[in-house]
Formats: sequence, structure tokens, C-alpha cells
Amino acid sequence: MIKVVLLGSGNVASHLIKAMEANEAIDLIQVYARSKKSIENLIESSKITTSFADLKEADVYVISVSDKAIEEVSNQIPFTDKLVVHTSGTMDFRVMHPKNKRGVFYPLQTFSKSKEVAMKSVPFCLETEKDEDFELVENLAKNLSNSVYKINGEQRKSLHISAVFVSNFVNHLYQIGNALCEENNVPFAILQPLIEETANKIKTLSPTEAQTGPAIRNDEPTIQKHLEALENPTYKELYRQLTLSIQNVKKL
Amino acid sequence: MIKVVLLGSGNVASHLIKAMEANEAIDLIQVYARSKKSIENLIESSKITTSFADLKEADVYVISVSDKAIEEVSNQIPFTDKLVVHTSGTMDFRVMHPKNKRGVFYPLQTFSKSKEVAMKSVPFCLETEKDEDFELVENLAKNLSNSVYKINGEQRKSLHISAVFVSNFVNHLYQIGNALCEENNVPFAILQPLIEETANKIKTLSPTEAQTGPAIRNDEPTIQKHLEALENPTYKELYRQLTLSIQNVKKL
Repeated sequence: MIKVVLLGSGNVASHLIKAMEANEAIDLIQVYARSKKSIENLIESSKITTSFADLKEADVYVISVSDKAIEEVSNQIPFTDKLVVHTSGTMDFRVMHPKNKRGVFYPLQTFSKSKEVAMKSVPFCLETEKDEDFELVENLAKNLSNSVYKINGEQRKSLHISAVFVSNFVNHLYQIGNALCEENNVPFAILQPLIEETANKIKTLSPTEAQTGPAIRNDEPTIQKHLEALENPTYKELYRQLTLSIQNVKKL
Repeated sequence: MIKVVLLGSGNVASHLIKAMEANEAIDLIQVYARSKKSIENLIESSKITTSFADLKEADVYVISVSDKAIEEVSNQIPFTDKLVVHTSGTMDFRVMHPKNKRGVFYPLQTFSKSKEVAMKSVPFCLETEKDEDFELVENLAKNLSNSVYKINGEQRKSLHISAVFVSNFVNHLYQIGNALCEENNVPFAILQPLIEETANKIKTLSPTEAQTGPAIRNDEPTIQKHLEALENPTYKELYRQLTLSIQNVKKL
């Protein structure tokens, strides 16, 4: 059993706690949170501490807090030479205190508290300062997921930017579609099969091959009609920019 | 059996031909195409005509051509008082010649020639000029799909704009994610579970509830890091605009 202490209580932390609690190869011996309340439904109260001084000895410390809090939390761990990893897509492992052995344990997924996630299919992007520590982080990840990658800092940061485009920004486009449906009394559910097919298509086609629609066809009459129909100036501007960007790729 | 003549040979036409050929309640008696070659693999050659003068009598004529060709093709149908529908998301049925009974038969999906589509789950948006013609169009659609909607022209046009946002523009964001992965030697496949989960999430959460990422968190340090890292000026500008747009929704 890998003994783990997890520090954090946000979206990512909550999903990791749930997955680790359900895992037979992982012994989540303790969770540090600023307040017990936020995670009391996930783990027995006696395992939660709100004091760094009470932290127990473990094989791995997983810091799953906001980027700006990682450094301070790493400073507060009252041990040395332990393996300490954070779960951030953007931060260097070097922001953590060098008294411990450092690494990264980044689950590349969109986590919302109210939505279950199949952790087995979440890609984990792993990195350690020292090669000799990689095996332990890898074992921890492989117990949780079937999709484990060794990814260096530069690659991870670029993956995080890609993730913003293919998930956060994509979800915002869903939000715009939803708003347009509401304005016109059309159920948003009509768009669900299209949304799914668009996501599925790129498993077998490259995004360039999969591109359809007025922009790639240079269908100017339709583009003009759409721009005229869009009343919201932000949506209109996004429509214009995304259309141009699609057409720029075509020209390359 | 509903006797159908289909006019067209593009992406949408090809998928409809395949689905109609496989359907026992639909008798696709003829396809009109400017050239036989493009669809010879989908239907026996004797059923294809390249001449409007040879068009046969049928219950429904489905015009599945580019928007700008719909009017001319409808003019060329050498019959009157037949039911003629087009498959466009944007065009009014009134662009077709009034010598025939007119309607719309719009399958709301992204069709690429090289990718199979499960027609049974494609939403069909239907409209007819006269109420009495609706049943026939509805029967035709219900034989092909489990998802059939009566949608008026204004609603359909707004759905088409929504479809551009949630499919064409979303696919372009996948393309940007793919380009960033290639630049950094990371396999794009790492992003696939995230892409799927993002599409699945909105079945149970609204897009507003589902939104995650630096923009909605107002995580300025991460946003700044991402903008600095993005070298392509188009991607940088899209990142900026989409971030602002997410933050504008939050303020409402």
C-alpha cells in the first residue's frame, strides 16, 4: 500500500480523495484542509487535519491547492526528504521547498464538484526532480488511472494551454450556443448529438480533416447572414475572429 | 414505402443516400448528380441521373446541394404540386420554386465524407409551407432518425448559428490544441479524455455550471503566463477574447 497524505480540498483535491479512498492499493492516511466542512462527506472526520503540525509521515504528499498557495503549503510540511508532488498544470516543481524531493502529479481533466469523473481514463502527467523518485509517483498514478505519461515542465505548460482551448474555451462556446437557443425557444438538447459527434470525430480524423461549416467553405453569404443575426457584440466579434482563424489555417 | 428522389452529391447528400439505401421503409428511386463519379460507390449507377429531364415521379424530392444552388435546382424539377424539401440550415423554403409544395428537412449534424454517422441519433429539423404536408416529411424523417423536431425558419436559422459555435468553432479550438501539441512534441491523444468529458459534462450540468479554468477563476497569473507563451498572434488574440467573454458572462 502506498501511504498518501493529500493537502487541499478544492475540485481536483475532492476527486482525488474520492478515487484514493476507493482504491485498494492506496492508503490515504490523512487530508489537510483549512476547514473540515468542505470534505467531510468524502472521508472520515478523524483523518482530516487543519493543522500542518499534525501532519503524519507518508510515502507521498500530494499538494492539490491553488497555484499561488503551493509554495507556502510546501514550506509548512514538517518533514524533509519526503516525496512531495503538486497537481498543477502550470507551476514548476521548483516553487516547492527543496527540503523535500519534488515532483508533479497533474491529472489532465476538467473537474467539477457536482460531476463524477472516471479517474481510470484521466491522463496523469508526471515529472520528478530526480529519476529515482519517478517509480513511486508512477505507481501511485497507475493505481488510479490507465493513462500515465512522463511529461516535462515545458510540455506540461503547453498541454495546460491546449487544455484551456479544447475544454474551457470549448465549454464557453457551448454556453454561447445555449444562450442562442434560449433566445429563440429551441431546446439546447437538439445540439447534443452534434456536440458529441464533433468530439468523437477527431478520434479518427485530424481536426483539420474534420473541419466543416461556412468558414472553411468560404461561404460568405452564410457568414454575413450569421453576423447580421448576432445581436450580442461579443458573440459577433468571436464569430468574426474564429471564422478568420479557420480561413487562415486553410491558406497555410 | 416512401418514394424519394434525392438531388445532390455533397457531404450531406452522401450520408442521406447511404441511410436511405439501408432503410426498408424508404425507396430511394433516383439520385440526381452533376457527375456520376462522386456517388457511384453509394448507389447503383442505373439509379443516378445527370439530367433534370430524366427525373422520375416520387413522393418527396430532397434537394441537398449548396445554399446558392437550391433555387436553380428547384426550378429544374419538371413536375408541379410535388413535395420538395431542402436540407439547408440557413435558407428559407421560399427560395424554392412555388410550383411545388415546399418544406425543409435539415439534419443537424457535422458530416464528413470519410466518417460514418449514426443517422438514428441525428436531430432532423422539419418545416413545411402547408400543415397538410408535414406528416409526410415527418414520416420520412422518423424512418431515418429517433430525433425529429418541428422547427420554424427563425428557430432553424438560430440553431444553425449555434451549430457553428458548438461544432465548427469547437473543432477549430481542437485544431489549435493539436497545433500546440505538435509544437511541443506531446501526443494530441492525451487531450482526448478531456475533450470527451467536456462534451459529456453538459448532459448533466448547464454550460455555465460546467465552466472551469483560469478565466472563470480570474486567475490572472496563469492567464498572463499563457498569453506570454502563445507565439501565434491569432491564437493569442483568441485566448484574450475568449477569456474576456467568459469573464463577462460571470459578471452578468
